[in-house]
Amino acid sequence: MQTLNVDLGERSYPIFIGTNLFSADNLKPYIKGNQVLIVSNETVAPLYLQQIRDILPAVQVDEVILPDGEQYKTLEQLNAVYDQLLQQRHNRTTTLIALGGGVVGDMTGFAAASYQRGVNFIQIPTTLLSQVDSSVGGKTGVNHPLGKNMIGAFHQPQVVLASVDVLSTLPDRELSAGLAEVIKYGLIYDAEFLDWLEANMSGLVGRDTGLLTQAIYRSCEIKAEVVAQDEKESGIRALLNLGHTFGHAIESCQGYGNWLHGEAVAAGTAMAADLSRRLGWLSDADYSRTIRILEAAQLPVDAPKGMTAKQFMDLMAVDKKVIDGQLRLILLRSLGQAVVTDQFDPDLLQQTLDQFCA
Amino acid sequence: MQTLNVDLGERSYPIFIGTNLFSADNLKPYIKGNQVLIVSNETVAPLYLQQIRDILPAVQVDEVILPDGEQYKTLEQLNAVYDQLLQQRHNRTTTLIALGGGVVGDMTGFAAASYQRGVNFIQIPTTLLSQVDSSVGGKTGVNHPLGKNMIGAFHQPQVVLASVDVLSTLPDRELSAGLAEVIKYGLIYDAEFLDWLEANMSGLVGRDTGLLTQAIYRSCEIKAEVVAQDEKESGIRALLNLGHTFGHAIESCQGYGNWLHGEAVAAGTAMAADLSRRLGWLSDADYSRTIRILEAAQLPVDAPKGMTAKQFMDLMAVDKKVIDGQLRLILLRSLGQAVVTDQFDPDLLQQTLDQFCA
Repeated sequence: MQTLNVDLGERSYPIFIGTNLFSADNLKPYIKGNQVLIVSNETVAPLYLQQIRDILPAVQVDEVILPDGEQYKTLEQLNAVYDQLLQQRHNRTTTLIALGGGVVGDMTGFAAASYQRGVNFIQIPTTLLSQVDSSVGGKTGVNHPLGKNMIGAFHQPQVVLASVDVLSTLPDRELSAGLAEVIKYGLIYDAEFLDWLEANMSGLVGRDTGLLTQAIYRSCEIKAEVVAQDEKESGIRALLNLGHTFGHAIESCQGYGNWLHGEAVAAGTAMAADLSRRLGWLSDADYSRTIRILEAAQLPVDAPKGMTAKQFMDLMAVDKKVIDGQLRLILLRSLGQAVVTDQFDPDLLQQTLDQFCA
Repeated sequence: MQTLNVDLGERSYPIFIGTNLFSADNLKPYIKGNQVLIVSNETVAPLYLQQIRDILPAVQVDEVILPDGEQYKTLEQLNAVYDQLLQQRHNRTTTLIALGGGVVGDMTGFAAASYQRGVNFIQIPTTLLSQVDSSVGGKTGVNHPLGKNMIGAFHQPQVVLASVDVLSTLPDRELSAGLAEVIKYGLIYDAEFLDWLEANMSGLVGRDTGLLTQAIYRSCEIKAEVVAQDEKESGIRALLNLGHTFGHAIESCQGYGNWLHGEAVAAGTAMAADLSRRLGWLSDADYSRTIRILEAAQLPVDAPKGMTAKQFMDLMAVDKKVIDGQLRLILLRSLGQAVVTDQFDPDLLQQTLDQFCA
């Protein structure tokens, strides 16, 4: 087992990464009161919920099982969590455990941030994507029909258990979706890690446990470094959103849940790389490398069929990175180095959209 | 105009207290972006909303007018605020302005805490209660059918404008409800202030502007001192809840909006004083003084007709101050000094409930 510490002063917490991490030793020290609410979904609960119950100390344990999918990351489902907390009389010392992917983690985190103005929570991510992304950094929230993650809070967990063996039950599409975020870390921050990913992509897709552990560790390490510098995203943290502005537009347009988040990010990353090439920042060879590694991870590199450039522009206008009406994008200065910028020729953006929406 | 600074490090903010405070000078420095959403209610908006619009800088100004009353302090109404923010494409630099009483302030504050994971907000409280209580200290939130203020966040405003002249339009019942919280500050923290309130209660009930200004200033000062010591309520801040555990039970039982919050707090304060007397902490004379000053402020000092001791016990069991099943109450060691304690004989609590529920 490896331990990575996310350094956020009094809100610091450890991420445990390895195999077979579901043990009382890893969980018990982080449960302070005598009540626990496990939040999971219909897919994950049958696989792992009883294992988690078995390793909990002798406390009151309640559960909420949500429907599975991004389309259920809503205020309405969040209310089901509040209902259960109140019906079972959970108090301020309760601990919420998120057992599932990014949707479960984000919703449970926001429930923990807002229940009685803030209670403890623990992340047990069961998808590659949530292990490398949403369980690091404290972003929590739900979607609104008019925009993704528009309602939420920054709220850090007490501990994250990223147990690599649970990925054995993950569908192929979900594994690939997680690899989109892994590739992103290489692209924005670490050219060497990108080389390593290129060399090992077939092993990662083949679920080699050792390779996955290394990829998760380095991904979390990069994210933790970035978040420690900028917890509330006033600067560098925005770089983690490479591909996400285009990607969120895809998710909104297609209806949450039809494209996986990681798939939308992959297509969005291809679009950001294309615009970076048009700006003269990436060479054609760099652009092709970006596309190839996404394809090697079995990810889409095109916009959804039928989606128009106008739909992209309308949906991107409500992005959280818009300031005073000006769209800002995360683009690549080179492979391994991203920038957030509003300094791009709108005609070039139009060309990228036209290219991908052909 | 008097200025009181609430000292919370980088979250510090000023409260302006005085007459005719609605001026561009008092508002403009606290609006950072170029978008504003004013949240008000059907009662207050016709009286003051245009005045606020007139003193805003040249920015995009949108508004949400909520129905008036505690029964509308819900997730559903909160969603109306999110809808408007997203429909009008408000971004992370937007400023929310709460123009109204405690309900508008709490909901707007929580909307600001959670929209895009946190945006700026300004409090313009238009009731005595919100001027002395809910606009100081950063508690925000909404009610849940199973408990009051169960969903929320700590989120501090940029500035509070407590303009005493707006109290001229306040109904008598609402003025009295605000005085309940003013009296509370004397009871828990400042025996001298309690003396002053006793001496000046008829002038306060008669809306003497000078007296009201003094009462508001000292109330905010006490609250600011307490909050600065304990922003997240891990200790001393709980003392501000004198009468609130009983009071919340009354509000829940009667349905939000039938008893005003301040009225429920007044009756709850009488109950807390009664239990303090039974514990031998207050003399009969102290108890009678407490009842008399509440009555002088034209406040109820009895539980609602028909409410039973069992209803009180059931509703108090979900109070946020319950820890590990143990009810904690704010009680009076003496007039001017409160304690939070779970060290009381349950039989004495039963006697108090039986007394008030006769």
